[in-house]
Amino acid sequence: MNLHQYIDSQKDANLAELIEFLKIPSVSTKSENKPDIERAAKWVADKLRDAGLEKVEILPTGGHPMVYGEWLKAPGKPTVLLYGHYDVQPAEPLELWTTPAFEPAVRGGNLFGRGTADDKGQVHIHVAAIRALMKVEGRLPVNIKVMIEGEEEVGSKNLWNFVERYRDKLKADALVVSDTSMLAKGVPSVTYGLRGLNYYQIEVTGPAQDLHSGVFGGPAPNPLRAISELFTQLHDKHNRVAIPGFNKDVAPLSKAERKALNSLPWSKKEFLKTMGAPGPGFAPEKGCTIVEQLWCRPTLELNGVWGGYTGEGAKTVIPSKAWAKFSTRLVPNQEPGKIAKIVEKHIRKLLPKIYTLKFEVLSMGKPWAAPYTHPYFLAAQRAMEKGFGKKAVFIREGGSIPFVTQMYDTFDVPCVLLGFGLPDENAHAPNEHLYLENYFGGIKAVADFYKELAVA
Amino acid sequence: MNLHQYIDSQKDANLAELIEFLKIPSVSTKSENKPDIERAAKWVADKLRDAGLEKVEILPTGGHPMVYGEWLKAPGKPTVLLYGHYDVQPAEPLELWTTPAFEPAVRGGNLFGRGTADDKGQVHIHVAAIRALMKVEGRLPVNIKVMIEGEEEVGSKNLWNFVERYRDKLKADALVVSDTSMLAKGVPSVTYGLRGLNYYQIEVTGPAQDLHSGVFGGPAPNPLRAISELFTQLHDKHNRVAIPGFNKDVAPLSKAERKALNSLPWSKKEFLKTMGAPGPGFAPEKGCTIVEQLWCRPTLELNGVWGGYTGEGAKTVIPSKAWAKFSTRLVPNQEPGKIAKIVEKHIRKLLPKIYTLKFEVLSMGKPWAAPYTHPYFLAAQRAMEKGFGKKAVFIREGGSIPFVTQMYDTFDVPCVLLGFGLPDENAHAPNEHLYLENYFGGIKAVADFYKELAVA
Repeated sequence: MNLHQYIDSQKDANLAELIEFLKIPSVSTKSENKPDIERAAKWVADKLRDAGLEKVEILPTGGHPMVYGEWLKAPGKPTVLLYGHYDVQPAEPLELWTTPAFEPAVRGGNLFGRGTADDKGQVHIHVAAIRALMKVEGRLPVNIKVMIEGEEEVGSKNLWNFVERYRDKLKADALVVSDTSMLAKGVPSVTYGLRGLNYYQIEVTGPAQDLHSGVFGGPAPNPLRAISELFTQLHDKHNRVAIPGFNKDVAPLSKAERKALNSLPWSKKEFLKTMGAPGPGFAPEKGCTIVEQLWCRPTLELNGVWGGYTGEGAKTVIPSKAWAKFSTRLVPNQEPGKIAKIVEKHIRKLLPKIYTLKFEVLSMGKPWAAPYTHPYFLAAQRAMEKGFGKKAVFIREGGSIPFVTQMYDTFDVPCVLLGFGLPDENAHAPNEHLYLENYFGGIKAVADFYKELAVA
Repeated sequence: MNLHQYIDSQKDANLAELIEFLKIPSVSTKSENKPDIERAAKWVADKLRDAGLEKVEILPTGGHPMVYGEWLKAPGKPTVLLYGHYDVQPAEPLELWTTPAFEPAVRGGNLFGRGTADDKGQVHIHVAAIRALMKVEGRLPVNIKVMIEGEEEVGSKNLWNFVERYRDKLKADALVVSDTSMLAKGVPSVTYGLRGLNYYQIEVTGPAQDLHSGVFGGPAPNPLRAISELFTQLHDKHNRVAIPGFNKDVAPLSKAERKALNSLPWSKKEFLKTMGAPGPGFAPEKGCTIVEQLWCRPTLELNGVWGGYTGEGAKTVIPSKAWAKFSTRLVPNQEPGKIAKIVEKHIRKLLPKIYTLKFEVLSMGKPWAAPYTHPYFLAAQRAMEKGFGKKAVFIREGGSIPFVTQMYDTFDVPCVLLGFGLPDENAHAPNEHLYLENYFGGIKAVADFYKELAVA
């Protein structure tokens, strides 16, 4: 039996094992699920050990533990560090699930359940691929280090300390992450770029205390109106961010990359359907396509606004304070620290002097784009085509995985993102699911990827 | 002893009695205070009866009861309907009170406690004035009907039904309300105008569900930004409401009224201090003074905005929906129904078609301004001058008392607002208080007012 034949022969066993994993409600944000988190960590450790990895450990962090394992018996071959996570989002609202979140069920070629796509299903693809290689070939084609964390859904709070502490242990020639999506069904994809993310919060104060809108309304400053006027001035009429200097460092796309991105089998219709906007649905930026805008252009986006009376009925208040949370998605070569400074400076300049401003940067994260012509990326592309029997494409993502850029900055090695999810699989919502064809194809693709890396 | 001498002799007794009234925590919004509401209603009825009123009753409404009493033995003299309320706002946040809300305390010439200014202190001024007239003169100079309600702080939900039901019983030649403020300390005031109030709520929907701001950010519609852009367009650069037709029916001020209003001892410095804005503090409207803007110009004011993530930390969401509560203060001769229609029409026109809008009018209320040259208003002015020994002025208010306009529309009689509060007495906030000089002066002024009415 060759590798693909063996993987095909294990379909039922693999699916049964994944379902076992999914049944553990390892919700990282809830203290009541702490025993489940520990159970899930042990489960992952056991399976890695069974698959053939060595020195498998459950390492403590400041929070939920990290599962580590390795196989380093391929001298002269590259060493790969695989990252994934065994924790999941809460399942609420439970009543919106067709079948219970932690009782996985197959319907219409999809496996439904919390964690199917994000990220237990994708972690298990690697477990199954490693096991298949060990069974069929008796060894792995490359050296592998595996770290599977339990805090991804709560902001990977202890991950960075962990990486710093075990810097030598984790050293590798490439990082592999399977926690993203393909471009679309039937389009195996290798992700080579992510947007960075700065997240801000502002507090605008007008009057010293809440005022009666009848007694003071008219001449009184209203911080809700100040926030409205502020965020109206942060985009120009072409829907570009209109903060002086904000776009200055944006790396222009090469002709080749632009052509490649715009030739992708990306469906505007599908995107609109997923977005579900009622109207034409777009707020396009002039001078670029939607795909370019999504992946290669920066944004400034309001994520939350609140202030004044928000309960039932009416209260005639002019609030003393109003708040906004907003974020900027960044692209190469925007530097988060510099962007944070010019955003703050501009907002301070725009806000009329009858208001005071508290400006906070809650987080900063770099953008990342790899040269997808690197041999490891080409190896990934070949492997995806072998695994799925279809042409594989290079894509970027609009989202951010701070870990990837941090790892890239720390180890200076290629980071290959092999995603097996699909954009509409409800990763953080009810009825999360994983397309089973991607799960089974993913096992083959990952096994092939490790083989291709050995000869890249 | 003449009337004023008698009232002076009763200072201690009146204050002690008011304190008794204030100790009853008649918070109308809380079901746990229902027994206190009943206790307060009975207390008012007892005191009205003791003062000499007849046919005193506690009349049921759909909610908290109405206290009614009358004295109709002055044939040929005007009949006055007095309105006030015995319910109070909640005292929370309790920790911000220097002395407990329901344990009244005198400090620096002020009486502190919930309900001192709004409205128990002012109701008690009338009780003490009626009692003094009965004691000293053995009768009242005019016919008096008294209705003291228990639901003012919860929107007077059953008041209008009550008035409709007892329309004949309540018929009078004038309405008197003491539930407002003087212009400033030492400036006895008669209020002859109020702004009307329309209150609205909108819900703006962009995407069909919340979206990940990384995966969709850029081309996705963001309802928070839509609300920002909407409310930026509703004022012009002169800070006037910029909705076509909105200002069309605004009655111009006569030269005489404008001159009178701008000659008032209104202190910009005091107003700024009360407002407590950090900067210059004004958002003035071009072409009118602050006093004119406050009392005689319409506004459009955001009272609450919410949408997206408003918890601790960061969530990278583009919300499906965002909401705003806002209100328009109206002045003569703006018609609330017409204004609601043009506000909705304009907002629907401004909102880009990639969003959908739900528009609700939560309440509508007419503006009101009386001819202050009417003999009853002049009687009120004379009485205030006698009671306080200081020149009394005619003022308008920026706030709204829907009851006044409704009563005016129903009975078509002058409504005289005799206010004994001060603008900075924290009516709905911790450390509510009443300036005792106004309380004692108010008793004399009210007694004099009833006498002046008899000869007006």
